[in-house]
Amino acid sequence: MAAYVVARRRSLGWITSQLGESSPSVVRCATLWRSYSTSFREERDTFGPIQVPSDKLWGAQTQRSLQNFDIGGERERMPEPIVRAFGILKKCAAKVNMEYGLDPAIGKAIMQAAQEVAEGKLNDHFPLVVWQTGSGTQSNMNANEVIANRAAEILGHKRGEKYVHPNDHVNRAQSSNDTFPTVNNIIYLFRSSSANTHILSHLFTNFCHQSIEFKDIVKIGRTHTQDATPLTLGQEFSGYTTQVRSFYPLCFMSLLPPTPLAQGGTAVGTGLNTKKGFDVKIARAVAEETNLPFVTAENKFEALAAHDAFVECSGALNTIATSLMKIANDIRLLGSGPRCGLGELILPENEPGSSIMPGKVNPTQCEALTMVCAQVMGNNVAITVGGSNGHFELNVFKPMIASCLLHSARLLGDASASFEKNCVRGIQANKERISKLLHESLMLVTSLNPKIGYDNAAAVAKLAHKEGSTLKEAALKLGVLTSEEFDTLVVPEKMIGPTD
Amino acid sequence: MAAYVVARRRSLGWITSQLGESSPSVVRCATLWRSYSTSFREERDTFGPIQVPSDKLWGAQTQRSLQNFDIGGERERMPEPIVRAFGILKKCAAKVNMEYGLDPAIGKAIMQAAQEVAEGKLNDHFPLVVWQTGSGTQSNMNANEVIANRAAEILGHKRGEKYVHPNDHVNRAQSSNDTFPTVNNIIYLFRSSSANTHILSHLFTNFCHQSIEFKDIVKIGRTHTQDATPLTLGQEFSGYTTQVRSFYPLCFMSLLPPTPLAQGGTAVGTGLNTKKGFDVKIARAVAEETNLPFVTAENKFEALAAHDAFVECSGALNTIATSLMKIANDIRLLGSGPRCGLGELILPENEPGSSIMPGKVNPTQCEALTMVCAQVMGNNVAITVGGSNGHFELNVFKPMIASCLLHSARLLGDASASFEKNCVRGIQANKERISKLLHESLMLVTSLNPKIGYDNAAAVAKLAHKEGSTLKEAALKLGVLTSEEFDTLVVPEKMIGPTD
Amino acid sequence: MAAYVVARRRSLGWITSQLGESSPSVVRCATLWRSYSTSFREERDTFGPIQVPSDKLWGAQTQRSLQNFDIGGERERMPEPIVRAFGILKKCAAKVNMEYGLDPAIGKAIMQAAQEVAEGKLNDHFPLVVWQTGSGTQSNMNANEVIANRAAEILGHKRGEKYVHPNDHVNRAQSSNDTFPTVNNIIYLFRSSSANTHILSHLFTNFCHQSIEFKDIVKIGRTHTQDATPLTLGQEFSGYTTQVRSFYPLCFMSLLPPTPLAQGGTAVGTGLNTKKGFDVKIARAVAEETNLPFVTAENKFEALAAHDAFVECSGALNTIATSLMKIANDIRLLGSGPRCGLGELILPENEPGSSIMPGKVNPTQCEALTMVCAQVMGNNVAITVGGSNGHFELNVFKPMIASCLLHSARLLGDASASFEKNCVRGIQANKERISKLLHESLMLVTSLNPKIGYDNAAAVAKLAHKEGSTLKEAALKLGVLTSEEFDTLVVPEKMIGPTD
Amino acid sequence: MAAYVVARRRSLGWITSQLGESSPSVVRCATLWRSYSTSFREERDTFGPIQVPSDKLWGAQTQRSLQNFDIGGERERMPEPIVRAFGILKKCAAKVNMEYGLDPAIGKAIMQAAQEVAEGKLNDHFPLVVWQTGSGTQSNMNANEVIANRAAEILGHKRGEKYVHPNDHVNRAQSSNDTFPTVNNIIYLFRSSSANTHILSHLFTNFCHQSIEFKDIVKIGRTHTQDATPLTLGQEFSGYTTQVRSFYPLCFMSLLPPTPLAQGGTAVGTGLNTKKGFDVKIARAVAEETNLPFVTAENKFEALAAHDAFVECSGALNTIATSLMKIANDIRLLGSGPRCGLGELILPENEPGSSIMPGKVNPTQCEALTMVCAQVMGNNVAITVGGSNGHFELNVFKPMIASCLLHSARLLGDASASFEKNCVRGIQANKERISKLLHESLMLVTSLNPKIGYDNAAAVAKLAHKEGSTLKEAALKLGVLTSEEFDTLVVPEKMIGPTD
Repeated sequence: MAAYVVARRRSLGWITSQLGESSPSVVRCATLWRSYSTSFREERDTFGPIQVPSDKLWGAQTQRSLQNFDIGGERERMPEPIVRAFGILKKCAAKVNMEYGLDPAIGKAIMQAAQEVAEGKLNDHFPLVVWQTGSGTQSNMNANEVIANRAAEILGHKRGEKYVHPNDHVNRAQSSNDTFPTVNNIIYLFRSSSANTHILSHLFTNFCHQSIEFKDIVKIGRTHTQDATPLTLGQEFSGYTTQVRSFYPLCFMSLLPPTPLAQGGTAVGTGLNTKKGFDVKIARAVAEETNLPFVTAENKFEALAAHDAFVECSGALNTIATSLMKIANDIRLLGSGPRCGLGELILPENEPGSSIMPGKVNPTQCEALTMVCAQVMGNNVAITVGGSNGHFELNVFKPMIASCLLHSARLLGDASASFEKNCVRGIQANKERISKLLHESLMLVTSLNPKIGYDNAAAVAKLAHKEGSTLKEAALKLGVLTSEEFDTLVVPEKMIGPTD
Repeated sequence: MAAYVVARRRSLGWITSQLGESSPSVVRCATLWRSYSTSFREERDTFGPIQVPSDKLWGAQTQRSLQNFDIGGERERMPEPIVRAFGILKKCAAKVNMEYGLDPAIGKAIMQAAQEVAEGKLNDHFPLVVWQTGSGTQSNMNANEVIANRAAEILGHKRGEKYVHPNDHVNRAQSSNDTFPTVNNIIYLFRSSSANTHILSHLFTNFCHQSIEFKDIVKIGRTHTQDATPLTLGQEFSGYTTQVRSFYPLCFMSLLPPTPLAQGGTAVGTGLNTKKGFDVKIARAVAEETNLPFVTAENKFEALAAHDAFVECSGALNTIATSLMKIANDIRLLGSGPRCGLGELILPENEPGSSIMPGKVNPTQCEALTMVCAQVMGNNVAITVGGSNGHFELNVFKPMIASCLLHSARLLGDASASFEKNCVRGIQANKERISKLLHESLMLVTSLNPKIGYDNAAAVAKLAHKEGSTLKEAALKLGVLTSEEFDTLVVPEKMIGPTD
Repeated sequence: MAAYVVARRRSLGWITSQLGESSPSVVRCATLWRSYSTSFREERDTFGPIQVPSDKLWGAQTQRSLQNFDIGGERERMPEPIVRAFGILKKCAAKVNMEYGLDPAIGKAIMQAAQEVAEGKLNDHFPLVVWQTGSGTQSNMNANEVIANRAAEILGHKRGEKYVHPNDHVNRAQSSNDTFPTVNNIIYLFRSSSANTHILSHLFTNFCHQSIEFKDIVKIGRTHTQDATPLTLGQEFSGYTTQVRSFYPLCFMSLLPPTPLAQGGTAVGTGLNTKKGFDVKIARAVAEETNLPFVTAENKFEALAAHDAFVECSGALNTIATSLMKIANDIRLLGSGPRCGLGELILPENEPGSSIMPGKVNPTQCEALTMVCAQVMGNNVAITVGGSNGHFELNVFKPMIASCLLHSARLLGDASASFEKNCVRGIQANKERISKLLHESLMLVTSLNPKIGYDNAAAVAKLAHKEGSTLKEAALKLGVLTSEEFDTLVVPEKMIGPTD
Repeated sequence: MAAYVVARRRSLGWITSQLGESSPSVVRCATLWRSYSTSFREERDTFGPIQVPSDKLWGAQTQRSLQNFDIGGERERMPEPIVRAFGILKKCAAKVNMEYGLDPAIGKAIMQAAQEVAEGKLNDHFPLVVWQTGSGTQSNMNANEVIANRAAEILGHKRGEKYVHPNDHVNRAQSSNDTFPTVNNIIYLFRSSSANTHILSHLFTNFCHQSIEFKDIVKIGRTHTQDATPLTLGQEFSGYTTQVRSFYPLCFMSLLPPTPLAQGGTAVGTGLNTKKGFDVKIARAVAEETNLPFVTAENKFEALAAHDAFVECSGALNTIATSLMKIANDIRLLGSGPRCGLGELILPENEPGSSIMPGKVNPTQCEALTMVCAQVMGNNVAITVGGSNGHFELNVFKPMIASCLLHSARLLGDASASFEKNCVRGIQANKERISKLLHESLMLVTSLNPKIGYDNAAAVAKLAHKEGSTLKEAALKLGVLTSEEFDTLVVPEKMIGPTD
């Protein structure tokens, strides 16, 4: 009993102990760590017996992992999508295993229990963290143990009796080595097929609308952060539209590659201890269960030993992050002000911006999004390092890769949605300001190039800059143009495209 | 009411909705999302009134953030150390503000409420995620609102009445812009001063002991992963010892830089709206409260606008991660086998290694640690990107930087501790195997160099390699040495250091 | 004159000055820096006159850049492919500009001069480094100036007279802002269409052959770096084959996106100062000149302001690098030895491996390749940072992005070719060693699972491990099987796939 | 002969062949590759004879590497500082070896030849690229061979005769494994001790001066890119000054760690084949030769197998890059305009900014510097990956790590120098513009907080914002203050610090 309680202590009480050690005066609360359980039962594996909390369905191997990998605390638990995908997979495995001789009563109970896992009803029984064995073995055993115990209960037996055996019945014909990558593929598809592309649609639609809405607003362009020739605000937003449109193939690309499932490869990819056809059948079962086009991987060796498809997918997310960071930076700078910045865009006010400066409204959605982008770029490096470190028949950075990829995808999806809903959708053009800046600009001078040549045009601009005058005044003073000629040539509205 | 419930739905019900959308057959559970509250009260800020759950202490601005930044769900909440450090800082601020005219009754109530935050008793009232405004403003307001409402209650007033005002009383003389970096420094010191160096001590001590314990075990060296000249296992471990010893200055380096506190800089670093001396006093108060050598930052402008010290600190963690990955890789490869690998080390058995291969024990602690190292390398890039993106008077990647740094430090500390306790400590030398490999090796030939020259020695090695014979047989066959000469020259025990 | 000489001094004499400052005893050579020229002519731009070496074709703006960006020295010159792609583009521009009124005599001379640039004949006249203006303006001007002066000479005029004007004639209807990304697309296609896929073909073909050649060699599998169930060496190599096969779409993906050309967008994407249709015509001209399917970009705003397609391409190279690092690591470990490693593969001997250990042959090709992979991963981060930092109408990290991408692609192509030719092609299986390891292994025990169950099989393996005996001896001792049963069950050749 | 010529073809003729393959119309020049030599001599190593160009001093092993590692071409040659540091080390080794019995005549000739290498006189004889064996063995052999042949010539013997033997005489008592890291330490110190800190001094001094020069210029502050409370321009620059000041310890940190030299560890760290004391003597010799405080590494095992000190050093450069990117970004945005940006700073005009927009001057130095910063961040990841991949007694990413580190340091040093000289030094304040923006700002409202409270102040700001009026007009309209009170309270010059 003590073992379990002790095992959890640090992860919950970390702060306490830190504070306690270094500054006893600060913290006086005696115990932060909850003792989860008051009674225990004995479970057993090849290592011998071990105490497990009575109210939990997990077994010996989960308990050992809990004690051996006290890394990172609650926040680092295997993400829920992975847990639930285990449920889907184990349900399918039982279904197929019944075709190969698994007792139907036991098989059906396993399917029922696995369905509960898939529905998230048993989340509390999956306490393990990402930072465990690199094949995800312990989470696989966690799923096997929980489902076995729950299935046994369904059949009227007690937890821990192994009436339904986690290995012989639930894990039958599977290895962690093919199970964990399969689970990653399952969860992965949920994510990208619906959520992200859905969100991108909104973002794309918004930018589209705005590039039309703003199509007649001529404004100063900026290159090198310096004033440049004019364009319309609609044109500027059409650039964003084009960027976001290119996310679709990226999302799709990150959708397609991993549909081939590793399941059926067992320990090293050969499929030892399965029957012929098991791999095809289980892929078909998963496809039916999820309504998604899963097939079995042609080459199981690659599917266990390398995760290039996940690296590629992370690369796609990295590209999206890069692109969104550019857009969000532009929007916050174009919205800077209200009076001492560029001030061309009016961003929606969602909250009071500062605790000390009343009236100030900050581009907070841009800030949240760009922080997310930085995290996604970092996760891409973590995944790259993990992907490059496989050895022989097995890559053992699987949980880290899966967790980082989920993290990146979730954050990017949520932050894009928030950005679209709470910022982009409400952006308005500050027409007055845009017009003022445009007409003060020196850069309209480029429209003189074809008439008076580059060197003369440069002279006009330099003079106006030096004297703080308008371009027209400068041009007349230098005698390179008449007033009428100037007015005919310098028309911003004519400068937003090529001439006939 | 609806607003709040809706706001939480996606972050909790994400999986459901995903599963639901794409595969209706899988998931039948109706509602995953809990409605936290059944009753609400009205809170108010400069934006107007808003509904807040009655059982929560937070106010209007926290509620707005909750609704505006629905990014990442529960797992992405601002880490507990940051929340509690807010408690420490707000307590100190109240203490100093009383010197500058804050009503003592209110001041004391604030101190008491802040102490509860510091003790982690009010964690449930800090629902905001990392992905919010880039200055951490909303978490600062969260702290102000919770402390104000709690202090009001202590004084017998009701929540939401603003008897104690979150801005005028609790946030008095502070801005988020100087508060959040100060909080990061406070929590940062807790972490590195005690936890990590403590863990490193254990790791260092272990490697030290082993380099002594193994000092007489002569083994084959390996360079380019190929057989090389011999060394002792103790010498090999002394390399690890030296690596780990160099972590101390890295930890210390990452300890020292951020002790100067930004507090007192307020919005842009000038200290507007504080009184002279406030910065020094609050640094002193924090130093007293934490028993740590905090001082006020000499230059508050840098302290708000740049976070180079955090980037530097992350660089130190990155170096530690790089180093630990090398060590963990070596240990798993030296422990590979049991019969078809190198097999020179026997790693402790902590759990059954495989669900399908009985008897197999895997280097799971090495795997957890190396996954952590990859994550730390990734976080370093995220922090670098965040650090490089400050604009003008404020870097707005603060919560991401703080959260990544805490993540890296916590994972590295925990994983090192786990690695030390569950792996390094129990490593044994497989003397028999080591000896067998050593004596089969061809590379003992290098000890012939001084006697017969490089080219002859190479010929001996090549012949033995070609014929599968021993070096001695080859040397005699080539006639370059007598049997006695060979035995005198080739003594592995004499090859582990320079000669007199 | 002095100006130019001084400008080059540091970049050439850096080491000298370093050595000189810190250790005068070491270096006695008086002058490392060559004075390139002994005579100079005057060139002129809007900034006024400047001295340029007489024997060089460049003009005033190139000379200014040379003096203003003394960064990195010779090694950092704009890569040759970029210089030559400028030639192709300027030739096409002249061709199209003649349709829009450029004097045919001048136009033809420009085309001839540009052709010389395209052929690499004028490389010595492109002295500028990557680290210049972020739009590549100065390299664009370098091309304009060199081509203008050379075209003038062709027409019988002198350098520096501006008979052919770099801006009005050569740069006509172009801006650096649309020219540099166009150049990057041109060079980019050369690279990936031919070189890399060609190399991958060889690598793929080799691995294919080997997976057939080795199809009957049964060997021990390894997961978690520990002994696992057997597979054939052919199966192992089929994993590599599958990895390499997936490079094709990656190469193709990195091939397709950037074919839309930015040219015609001019300064901010609007196409100001061009004629309608110029963009389509120049894309067609480039397509004809290069035989590649270039088209004009639909949205020029995106093409100037964002470089997501390059980031995506770098992500593809990053994935290839990740994958190759896994393969190269496996090969060096499987080839480790000759006697104290795994020793299953015999790698070709290309050179003496060590200056001190005769007879040792190292996996040097794996080392070169993995170093390249690390560099590609690093460049991917640099490109990501560059891609995320565009501002408004222009990304100003163009030369860095282009140079990093070329660097990654070139290194990856060359190193893969070298790896294939000097390593993979010559790999042989060490059948004797493979067989020995296989039969010593304990992991054949898993074939007992279906017969005697997981727990019994584990017991057999543990006993054999403990006593150093064979599995058979252990099984008989435990009485779980007869000798005949064991021999029937444990047949490695039957363990390399699922059963009927 | 053919072999050598063929070996160089691809690296020089790469572009040709690319262009040639895909677009025959473009390139008509027949041969780009130069045949370096017209005559050859035979050299010999343990692999047998090989043809070497007669005019080169290198020998058989260099020639083999040239043919086996055709990766990246000329640009990827081992950097000159490394070549020259080999000269220094080999000179010292000969000196010490004479104490241990090396023939003095030969020893002196070696010292003389090595001195020529140290002086850069023999650079042309070091053709090998970075991408070779991961221990740098081939560059070590290159040095041995060149020095041996040159020493033989000095003594009146012919090249290739091995009168002075590259292994037995020049490489005596050394291995590549201890030589290459030693060389890296030697060159490393040159770099950082003088160049970078020198440059930083200038940058620091400049910012210091400017923070004094600008101390009375009150300007608007900006947080979240939005208008904030005022500060002086001098205060803003004092932030940069503080950032740059913190580079000193970073440079120093990156200076100190690697002074312990690996030399004397030979192949695996034991020092086999050296005499006792050799390591101490050679470190002392290097210290004398370089005037730098080199000592022998306490633990040679770590010095060969891990390069944590280089990773740490790269982390320091990464921090500097992060910091400089922030500063450069600020400066270009504060200098944006001239009329439609912030326009508070006037940056020096160094060149015409645009080929199409006359009069435009771009922040090109900021662009070059930020591109360099991105590259340094990328190199840091490459070095991290390389550092984490050591195996057993040897890290085999040595040349990549050394080359990246030199690249980062050189670029950062040169670009900072260029930035300082061509940009920072000439920055002027645009006082008129600064004053105009300041007085238009709404954010002066915060100075009303202490008088009328946060909520009232917010109301004033909101009204002025809505009506486009001044703060004063709004305050009077709302009746919260009299005109006199307003004038007394709102004084920007009083808002740049705390009050008494």
